[in-house]
Amino acid sequence: MTAHKVVLVVLDGVSDRPCTELGGRTPLQAAHTPTLDSIASGGICGIMDTISPGIRPGSDTAHLSLLGYPPKKFYTGRGPLEAEGSGIHMEPGMIGFRCNFATIDRAGMIVDRRAGRIHRTEPLSISIQKGVDLSRHGVEFFFRSGAGHRAALALKGEGMGFCVSSNDPKKDGVAPLPFRALKAAPDDAKTAMVLNDFEQQSRAILRDHPLNRERQSSGVPPANIVLIRGAGQMGSFQPFPERYGMKGGVIAAATLIAGIGKAVGLEYIPVAGATGSADTNLPGKVEATINALKNREFVLLNIKGADEAGHDGKALEKRAFIERVDETLAPLIDLDDCLLVVCSDHSTPCAIRDHSADPVPIVLNGEGVRVDSVKSFDEISCAHGGLHRICGESLMPIIIDLVDRAHKYGA
Amino acid sequence: MTAHKVVLVVLDGVSDRPCTELGGRTPLQAAHTPTLDSIASGGICGIMDTISPGIRPGSDTAHLSLLGYPPKKFYTGRGPLEAEGSGIHMEPGMIGFRCNFATIDRAGMIVDRRAGRIHRTEPLSISIQKGVDLSRHGVEFFFRSGAGHRAALALKGEGMGFCVSSNDPKKDGVAPLPFRALKAAPDDAKTAMVLNDFEQQSRAILRDHPLNRERQSSGVPPANIVLIRGAGQMGSFQPFPERYGMKGGVIAAATLIAGIGKAVGLEYIPVAGATGSADTNLPGKVEATINALKNREFVLLNIKGADEAGHDGKALEKRAFIERVDETLAPLIDLDDCLLVVCSDHSTPCAIRDHSADPVPIVLNGEGVRVDSVKSFDEISCAHGGLHRICGESLMPIIIDLVDRAHKYGA
Repeated sequence: MTAHKVVLVVLDGVSDRPCTELGGRTPLQAAHTPTLDSIASGGICGIMDTISPGIRPGSDTAHLSLLGYPPKKFYTGRGPLEAEGSGIHMEPGMIGFRCNFATIDRAGMIVDRRAGRIHRTEPLSISIQKGVDLSRHGVEFFFRSGAGHRAALALKGEGMGFCVSSNDPKKDGVAPLPFRALKAAPDDAKTAMVLNDFEQQSRAILRDHPLNRERQSSGVPPANIVLIRGAGQMGSFQPFPERYGMKGGVIAAATLIAGIGKAVGLEYIPVAGATGSADTNLPGKVEATINALKNREFVLLNIKGADEAGHDGKALEKRAFIERVDETLAPLIDLDDCLLVVCSDHSTPCAIRDHSADPVPIVLNGEGVRVDSVKSFDEISCAHGGLHRICGESLMPIIIDLVDRAHKYGA
Repeated sequence: MTAHKVVLVVLDGVSDRPCTELGGRTPLQAAHTPTLDSIASGGICGIMDTISPGIRPGSDTAHLSLLGYPPKKFYTGRGPLEAEGSGIHMEPGMIGFRCNFATIDRAGMIVDRRAGRIHRTEPLSISIQKGVDLSRHGVEFFFRSGAGHRAALALKGEGMGFCVSSNDPKKDGVAPLPFRALKAAPDDAKTAMVLNDFEQQSRAILRDHPLNRERQSSGVPPANIVLIRGAGQMGSFQPFPERYGMKGGVIAAATLIAGIGKAVGLEYIPVAGATGSADTNLPGKVEATINALKNREFVLLNIKGADEAGHDGKALEKRAFIERVDETLAPLIDLDDCLLVVCSDHSTPCAIRDHSADPVPIVLNGEGVRVDSVKSFDEISCAHGGLHRICGESLMPIIIDLVDRAHKYGA
């Protein structure tokens, strides 16, 4: 007997190193986690290099790897995945970018790279989409607002490269940079030229936009320039249902993770109140996961808050968030006919406030797995597990084997 | 917090198999090693295939792998690395060889492949360097004496290959072999022709050399021919400081290891009395390591003696040497702000008197590592460690991550 459905829970950045504030324990070790420990006790555990040993994964490259789309082959940059997550339908070959609305002063100097942390930028995006015209370059574009000051841009046209620099100088008090081709290729030169034109046209639209006039009269910084970075070309992904024979969904607050899920052919399942921070609607995401399984065989559930605490270097908050997550995950234990996989996409040690290459803990729990003696879900205990040390790229093949959908290699 | 400096101690050939003379224990298990055990207790341990499972590493390929220059890409033979270690500055593309001074009789038969284990061959090398002329081939050459009967040769010129045979028949009583191209390529044919010319010219110089006349009148074998082997083409190595952002040094008695270190851009740090044998100046090498860290972030310390004992099949001597090493390494425990890594480059089991592919033990000790429960530094205990089984190629990425110099792949 084997389970037929799969829930893959990715606790974003939950993995850590020993923390001084926690007496040399990791947040996962220090947290009271009866649910996770029960999943570990009934499952097979291990540690995992989501890319490969010593390589520090981004959330994007790690999730591609976990879903069985190796980033070396499928990753060209964050832009196209963010664009997909923002609601732009990215076709293979389209060039995608991450954007910020920002503020420049009369002298053309950047004074606020987040335009006073502006919210609800849709009126600006709609005006840009209507007003900018790139047809003289033979280029179609798509511009969408994201959360807060964020947005996404996609370009569609012949002969366009993605090796271009950004106009974002990454600091205030200086002028935006011109877009440049990073190689001497005509494709990249074309993209740079189109972006320079897009910047000029969008600046003209934003300068006199009613929403910006309003902001200026209220004394808040206007969103009068779009900073554009993270260039990449949308790849061609064999759709998840075709690759694995399972219909799947993705539940994630982060645009990037939603975009990766959609790019590979998972259906995006929105959840009200999911924020990607510690205040996210955790029970809602778990409930949506259980509901999604009714007519799907696979759900990727990404929970982001622990990563944020790691980036902030807050070990105690990370532990507290883990305990909340643990409580909320309890209903997943009782799922019928389901292989439950819990892991992380990368470590975000509080001590270094960024991603690290330390392997992440992983557990697979469900009918047919070889249960090992690990009783606790944490970085140190799972290292003693029956899975040993695996690579992220191996996860989907292992899952597919355990739910009996794998094909024999040979006879 | 993380350490910022790295000491990589390679106990050359220390790794072994169970030895009958030691009651079925390995020399590392049998030795009293409080220093190594304390490093293991406070660190994360594992086993490592320096190349890949089942592949018997040479010291050269293993060290390239450990330094993050995969031998499949960077290794073309021992010659160019020995030449670099002998003090010849090897530029990318130059062809390098290992040489022996040897003795031939009047009939042209080799009678001693080490010329009576001759020492101090510099007068011969200088005469060869001055007297041999390869300019008719458009070739420049560099010839240097090494330890004992050893020497190194490098050729610099256009259109030269390195797939050539040796003139060393590897036994006495026969004539030296002609150099031949191993493929039907004109580049290799040119190198073979140049080597045949070098042999003839150098024989003429050595025949009447005063030092050889003196030897003959003292009844010791003259060094009247150069045997040449280990052909390889110097590769192009991204310099270590550029690759890893760390200035580094290498401390090693063996010319080969010094050559590898220099080839990849580590500064060679000579230590008086370092011999590469059991009688080496161990405290001097450890002291030099500590001094070298004052203005460098990385030191590779190679200690060779255990390998020799393994090649000689002497388990008791290997154990005794390990105990001496252990005592001498003690000051490294107290280094501040330092990630201390101890491993071996390959196993040299006394039972087989040569390198084997058995994985080697490894420990990483320093701020931030996930300390595991291993209490003893040996092949069997380390196999239970938190690192599990890694490949040599992964070592530098793991180190670079732990000292917080790694770049994120993705976002």
